[in-house]
Amino acid sequence: MNSAVQTIPTASNKHAPEMGELTPYHTEPSLIQAATTPMGVSLEWQDGQQTTLPLRWLRDHCACQACRHPQTRERLYLPLDAITEPLSVALWDGHLHLHWQDGHVSAFHSGWLYQRRPTAIRHSAVPSVQPWNDNFAPERVCHTDFLTLHGEKAWLTAMLRDGLALITDGPLLEEEVSRLAERIGPQRATNFGARFDVRSKPNPNNAAYTAVGLPLHIDLPNWRQPPDIQLLYCLQNEASGGESLFADGARVVEALRQQDPAALAILSETPIDFRFQDETHDISTRAPVITLDAKGNLVEMRLNNWIRDALHLPVEQMDAWYNAYALLWTLFHSEAHQLELTLRPGQMIAFDNRRVLHGRREFDPNSGARHLQGTYLDRDMLASRLRVIARSD
Amino acid sequence: MNSAVQTIPTASNKHAPEMGELTPYHTEPSLIQAATTPMGVSLEWQDGQQTTLPLRWLRDHCACQACRHPQTRERLYLPLDAITEPLSVALWDGHLHLHWQDGHVSAFHSGWLYQRRPTAIRHSAVPSVQPWNDNFAPERVCHTDFLTLHGEKAWLTAMLRDGLALITDGPLLEEEVSRLAERIGPQRATNFGARFDVRSKPNPNNAAYTAVGLPLHIDLPNWRQPPDIQLLYCLQNEASGGESLFADGARVVEALRQQDPAALAILSETPIDFRFQDETHDISTRAPVITLDAKGNLVEMRLNNWIRDALHLPVEQMDAWYNAYALLWTLFHSEAHQLELTLRPGQMIAFDNRRVLHGRREFDPNSGARHLQGTYLDRDMLASRLRVIARSD
Repeated sequence: MNSAVQTIPTASNKHAPEMGELTPYHTEPSLIQAATTPMGVSLEWQDGQQTTLPLRWLRDHCACQACRHPQTRERLYLPLDAITEPLSVALWDGHLHLHWQDGHVSAFHSGWLYQRRPTAIRHSAVPSVQPWNDNFAPERVCHTDFLTLHGEKAWLTAMLRDGLALITDGPLLEEEVSRLAERIGPQRATNFGARFDVRSKPNPNNAAYTAVGLPLHIDLPNWRQPPDIQLLYCLQNEASGGESLFADGARVVEALRQQDPAALAILSETPIDFRFQDETHDISTRAPVITLDAKGNLVEMRLNNWIRDALHLPVEQMDAWYNAYALLWTLFHSEAHQLELTLRPGQMIAFDNRRVLHGRREFDPNSGARHLQGTYLDRDMLASRLRVIARSD
Repeated sequence: MNSAVQTIPTASNKHAPEMGELTPYHTEPSLIQAATTPMGVSLEWQDGQQTTLPLRWLRDHCACQACRHPQTRERLYLPLDAITEPLSVALWDGHLHLHWQDGHVSAFHSGWLYQRRPTAIRHSAVPSVQPWNDNFAPERVCHTDFLTLHGEKAWLTAMLRDGLALITDGPLLEEEVSRLAERIGPQRATNFGARFDVRSKPNPNNAAYTAVGLPLHIDLPNWRQPPDIQLLYCLQNEASGGESLFADGARVVEALRQQDPAALAILSETPIDFRFQDETHDISTRAPVITLDAKGNLVEMRLNNWIRDALHLPVEQMDAWYNAYALLWTLFHSEAHQLELTLRPGQMIAFDNRRVLHGRREFDPNSGARHLQGTYLDRDMLASRLRVIARSD
C-alpha cells in the first residue's frame, strides 16, 4: 500500500472536525438569517449570499454521530422519507440548529453550509486540463523536491493539468519507479505485470520490447479501461537514438476540430476493435479512437495502430473512417505537435496515458544500453494526494 | 503476473497461423469468385455469401511479415494513403491473392476473410449479460473443477453472464483468494490494498470492518473506475448472522424502468458526488447513480449511501432526485430482488461490483469468528481467459 502515509497538519484559520469532514472549511462568513418557508429553510450569510435548502437535504446532511459514523465519517442516515417541517430553526454559535418533529437535532456550521449551498462555485485542489500550446515545456521537479509536500504538489498539479511532467536528478536504482509510484498510490498491474522493463529483448510480445522506432500511441487501448498514468524511469540511455516523443491529445483533438469537424465526428462516434493476443491472453475491446464528453471535451484517446483489430464497419463507412484516421495520425505526428525529449539516467517522465500519446525514435541496440523501468497509476490516486496535501494550505 | 500461464492446444479442424491470429478460424467456406470493381474487390464464398471489400481495407489487413510483426502479431502497416487498383486478383489454394501496384503481395485465407466480412454476425466466447429472473440460482463450481479448463470456463461464463458465481469446497488457506484471482489476472489494488480482510476491527475506516449490517452497495463508487469483479473467500463464519445479500442491478434497473421511467431518467442523467476521506486519502468522483449506454442498457451502478457526498444540485431538482433515489433503494432491498446466501468456510463468492450490489446482515462478533478475504479483478481479464480457453473448443 501507500508508503507515504502522512498526516498533514491543518492550517489554523480553518475548521474541520464536527461536520465529519477532514478537509477544513473556512469559519467565515456567518449565517445572519434563517427561516422556514414552504420550500425549506431560507438562509442568508453575512456577505449577502442567500439560498433555500429543502428540509430533506438538511436532514440528509446531519453530521451527528448517529447520522455520520464517528470513525469512518460515512453517512448512516438513509433519506427514504419526506421530511415534515422542523419544530424549530435557530442560529447561534455560528451554526444553524434544527429540531425535527421526531426529536432529532441537527447542527450545521455556517461556513460548511456556505461552501455547500447549491449556487456555490466549487473550488477544487485538482486543476483543470490545460491543452499544450506552442511554448509548452513540461514541469521539472527534482527528486529531492518531489519528496517534500511542496515539490510533490507542484508535480501532481502539473501532471493533472498538462498530462505530462518530469522528475529529475533521481538515483540510479532499480525499482525506484515503483517507490515513487507508491508514494502516490498502488501500482496498477496489467498483462505486462505491475512494473515493466523497456529494453530490446529476444522474442518480444510487444513492439516496445524491440529497438524499432515507435510512432505515437497510447498503451493498452484494448482494455476497457486502459491505465491512466504511465511512469517511465530512465536507468540507462547510452544507445544512439531512442529519443522520447509526446503529443497532447487534448491539443490535437482541438486542431482536428478546427481543420475537419466531420473527421472528428467520425473518429469519436465510430467504435472500432482493439485487440492484443499472445499465448496466454486475448484482451479486446470496442471503442472509438476519440471519446468526447457531452460538452465535446476529450475524455480519452485510443490511438494505437499495432493493436487495432480488423476494421468491422459497414463497407460504405470504411473510406471515410480511413481518411479521418490518416488525418488524425498526420496531425499527431506533425512537428508542431510533437515534443521531443532525451531522457537522462535518473529522470522519470510521467504522462496521462489516456490523453498524451507517447513514442520514441529508433535506437541502435549495439551502440549502448537503453533501459527504462515503467509502471502505471490510477489518476484518482494523484487527485487524492493533491486533495490531502491541500488540507494544509 | 498470471500464474496460470498455459498454452492450450488448438482443435484440429481449425486453422490459425498464417493470418497472424492465435484464435483459430474455420477452413470453410472457400472463396469461389473474386473480381475488382470500382468499390474494391467483390468476393463470393461457396455458401453464397457475397461482399465487396475496399482496397484500402484489404491492404490494411495484409498479414505478411512486413505488415504484421511475426512475433508480436501487431500491425506494422500504416493505412495513410489511398490505394490504387491492384495489378492482379486471384484465387488459389483457398486464398485470395492480391498483387499491388508497388509490388507488394498479400494473401488472405478464405475462412479468415469470411469471418471478417462486414456483414458477418460476430461470435464471441464472452456471453451477453443476462439479468436475473425469479428462479436465478448462482452457478457453483467446486474448487477442484475450477482448476480444470472445463470448470474454469463454466465459472467465467457464469460470472460474465450473471455477474455472480460461487466456488465451493476450497481449502481453508489464507490468501487462497489471491491464488484463485491470479489464475485469471493480476489483483487490482485500491486504497484498501490488493487483498483485504473483512472482519470487525477496532478503529475502522470503513463500515465493512465493523459488525453492523450492510445495506446493498457497490464498492468504491468514489473512484472514476471502481473495481470490476470482487472475490470474497470465506475462511471462518461461526458468528450468528452475517448472511450475504446480493441484488442484480441489470434486473432492478429494468424494474425501475417499468415502474417509473422518469425516476430512471433522473438517476441516470444526474451526476452526484461520491467521496471517501481518511487521514491519507480523499478520493472523489462525480457520476450518476445509474449509467446507461446509448441503447439504455446498464453500464454501471454507483449505489453506496455511506460515501455519497453532499448533494450539489439546483434546489428545484433535489426533491425529485431524493424521491427517485428512495424508490431505487426500496426496489433493491425488496425481498423479490434480494438473493441471500450463507457463505460456508471454503466457499468463494465473486460478483461484478459494477452491476451486482452486495451487502450482509448484522452479525454478533461475540458469537463466533467471521473472516472473509477479498480482492478485485478487472473484467477484461475474465473475458481474456475465456477467449484463450475457447481457442481449444
